[in-house]
Amino acid sequence: MDIKQKIEKANEEAVRRLTSGDPVLVDVAPAGEVIPGLENKMITHSGPPIEWGRMCGAQQGAIIGMVIYEGWAEGPEEARAKLEKGEIRLEPNHHHHAVGPMAGTISPSAPVWVVENRAFGNRAFCRQVEGRQQFGEFSKDALDGLRLWRDIWAPTLREALQKMGGLELNPIIIQALQMGDELHNRHSASSSLFANRMAIAISEADVLKERALPTLQYLAGHNLLFLGLAMACGKAITDPVMDIEYSTIVTAMARNGTDFGIRVSGLGDEWFTAPAPVVDGLFLPGYSADDAGFDMGDSAIAETVGWGAFTIGGAPGILTLVGGTPEEALEYTREMRKITSATHPTYRMPALGFAGTSVGIDIRKVVQTNVSPIIDTAIAHKDPGYPIIGAGLVRAPIECFKQALIAFSQKYNT
Amino acid sequence: MDIKQKIEKANEEAVRRLTSGDPVLVDVAPAGEVIPGLENKMITHSGPPIEWGRMCGAQQGAIIGMVIYEGWAEGPEEARAKLEKGEIRLEPNHHHHAVGPMAGTISPSAPVWVVENRAFGNRAFCRQVEGRQQFGEFSKDALDGLRLWRDIWAPTLREALQKMGGLELNPIIIQALQMGDELHNRHSASSSLFANRMAIAISEADVLKERALPTLQYLAGHNLLFLGLAMACGKAITDPVMDIEYSTIVTAMARNGTDFGIRVSGLGDEWFTAPAPVVDGLFLPGYSADDAGFDMGDSAIAETVGWGAFTIGGAPGILTLVGGTPEEALEYTREMRKITSATHPTYRMPALGFAGTSVGIDIRKVVQTNVSPIIDTAIAHKDPGYPIIGAGLVRAPIECFKQALIAFSQKYNT
Repeated sequence: MDIKQKIEKANEEAVRRLTSGDPVLVDVAPAGEVIPGLENKMITHSGPPIEWGRMCGAQQGAIIGMVIYEGWAEGPEEARAKLEKGEIRLEPNHHHHAVGPMAGTISPSAPVWVVENRAFGNRAFCRQVEGRQQFGEFSKDALDGLRLWRDIWAPTLREALQKMGGLELNPIIIQALQMGDELHNRHSASSSLFANRMAIAISEADVLKERALPTLQYLAGHNLLFLGLAMACGKAITDPVMDIEYSTIVTAMARNGTDFGIRVSGLGDEWFTAPAPVVDGLFLPGYSADDAGFDMGDSAIAETVGWGAFTIGGAPGILTLVGGTPEEALEYTREMRKITSATHPTYRMPALGFAGTSVGIDIRKVVQTNVSPIIDTAIAHKDPGYPIIGAGLVRAPIECFKQALIAFSQKYNT
Repeated sequence: MDIKQKIEKANEEAVRRLTSGDPVLVDVAPAGEVIPGLENKMITHSGPPIEWGRMCGAQQGAIIGMVIYEGWAEGPEEARAKLEKGEIRLEPNHHHHAVGPMAGTISPSAPVWVVENRAFGNRAFCRQVEGRQQFGEFSKDALDGLRLWRDIWAPTLREALQKMGGLELNPIIIQALQMGDELHNRHSASSSLFANRMAIAISEADVLKERALPTLQYLAGHNLLFLGLAMACGKAITDPVMDIEYSTIVTAMARNGTDFGIRVSGLGDEWFTAPAPVVDGLFLPGYSADDAGFDMGDSAIAETVGWGAFTIGGAPGILTLVGGTPEEALEYTREMRKITSATHPTYRMPALGFAGTSVGIDIRKVVQTNVSPIIDTAIAHKDPGYPIIGAGLVRAPIECFKQALIAFSQKYNT
């Protein structure tokens, strides 16, 4: 086989794995109990590796929040001092089979979604989705949302899941894609369908009403609830795609608000980074582009598996959030076919005649076509201490793909 | 004012009423308790008035089913004999502020959705949605579904609703239209959202688990559940539009499988009928167009208020059921603007750039443009005794609109 054939064969295997993922929600458990290598006095974060001093304002704010939440500091000044002295270890989620939206911070006592990919036996983890602490806010109110998750909602879900023995997520994903979700910033359908299933499970598990009722209210009232599940699914689906020799398929896109990084199957766990770009978006009242930090979050794992902006043509409901017209949204989705290797056999979009979602971003195609993956995403403030300020669209920096292609050429002598 | 001005003014008022409906689910109650004039030994049916002998096979089958269900006969032969002798009174749902999908049969002990239009104080009613008895099947299995509704599901919903004091339905309708429902044959989103609201209400009402759990399972497992609610909403919204002098706006489209009938605001409760047309559709395995009955059901109340095929462009997920392409669906929705008077201020379709749904079918515009309202609908068998056999698209017969326009000219000397 010549090199081109070896690449094609490797990418076929990558796509086979990408399209045969079978994600099952098996637990909602404290991170320290389930995430390998997540130790005491450690916080994991979104994006490629980064030290405290280079972190953007929102990620610093979110980490300060987690330090207070864990009781490792009384207030922000003490937290900041400890972080500056290196007393809290900071590592990327992606180095622990985990992902987190926006700042992405995970600390040991915070419960995470645990998703098992039953086709390959691996597990992945994602933190709770909310609109404040993960955006950099560390007020008592912001942290109280984390405490309710830890003390009420997550334990109730855990109890119900244990009774039901896990919940297959592909049926929800397949349906939600036919109901206008793109599974990155629009989760109205998936969250609602998930809440339906959990309401039955909570009833079956005879959870005490004092915990059952607030959990049902939380589930039915949180229209981005499923984002955490979708991200854990994305990570669970992509992890088995890592380390296929000769494959040029992207296995991760992640941003920490300072750097944008990608990983490529045939290049193992190496990160190829470029400065995190500006998001072109719409802002909540009181905020503008001047307030915005740069692109942030592990949530681009959604686009890595073909959701998010890759399927935005099937999700026009999201346009009030991120801007643009239905026609532009359809065009983005069609454009992504140019840089991907296959269409998914069961994840389908009615608005595109039930075409499969585009999967398997090929770094060669990105560089050859000069078409960069498009991502829809929320926007955090540039400074610590704020909740969500907006949402929009952004392109992955093409430099990451060029660097990766050069590294690929060097490794495989192409 | 000349006649044209009088018509315009009347139609403005009709549209004002059509677009200001505020439907609230207030009860799920035995029909005989709540539907005015529904007496013992009476069954109401879909479509314009029709006697037993002219009824189509599916409607006869459904009525036989209800006679057995009520215990007025032991089996189909006895039921048929009583019906032929006129011992059971048959009247249209529409004459009782009620609607029913397909055969539409309502009998006194069958619980119905009770929707109050809080903007006008009127109430409307719709029967349970299921895929067997209302299509003409009268087997024990088919009737057992009605019994579970009567004995378990409906009483549980009633108990929960009484505790919560009613549920506003516009928030669900608005959201569902942004999630790919068209609210006639696709109710995936509305049913799921409704199920979550009721799960909370059932928990709050402390319903016994032996009834709560099967009801939660019923709610979460029935993706056409909301059709009955949407139809009751449609009827509750259109009833206040009846009897506006000079208005040419359609207030009902309904079919009994033999006749297709419409009512017009300025023409009161008169029906204008033509033979029910053939539905152009897709069939379930084992059935074909040769088996199909003609167009049937009160469910075209959905199109009367601007849902169903009028919004099918925003609901491409339905196309696996009824056939066609996303582009054709968008074109149907745009075409309906030609025969309607306004767009709805809050019922919006993301796929059409968040345009409002088209409301207020004007019989003048239908006749002038020769564009007839399009309806998406399920298909019943031509003979009694069968469940659902397919679904598709159909045009309202233009003769109904021509007759109505002639009657209008005669009444108002135009």
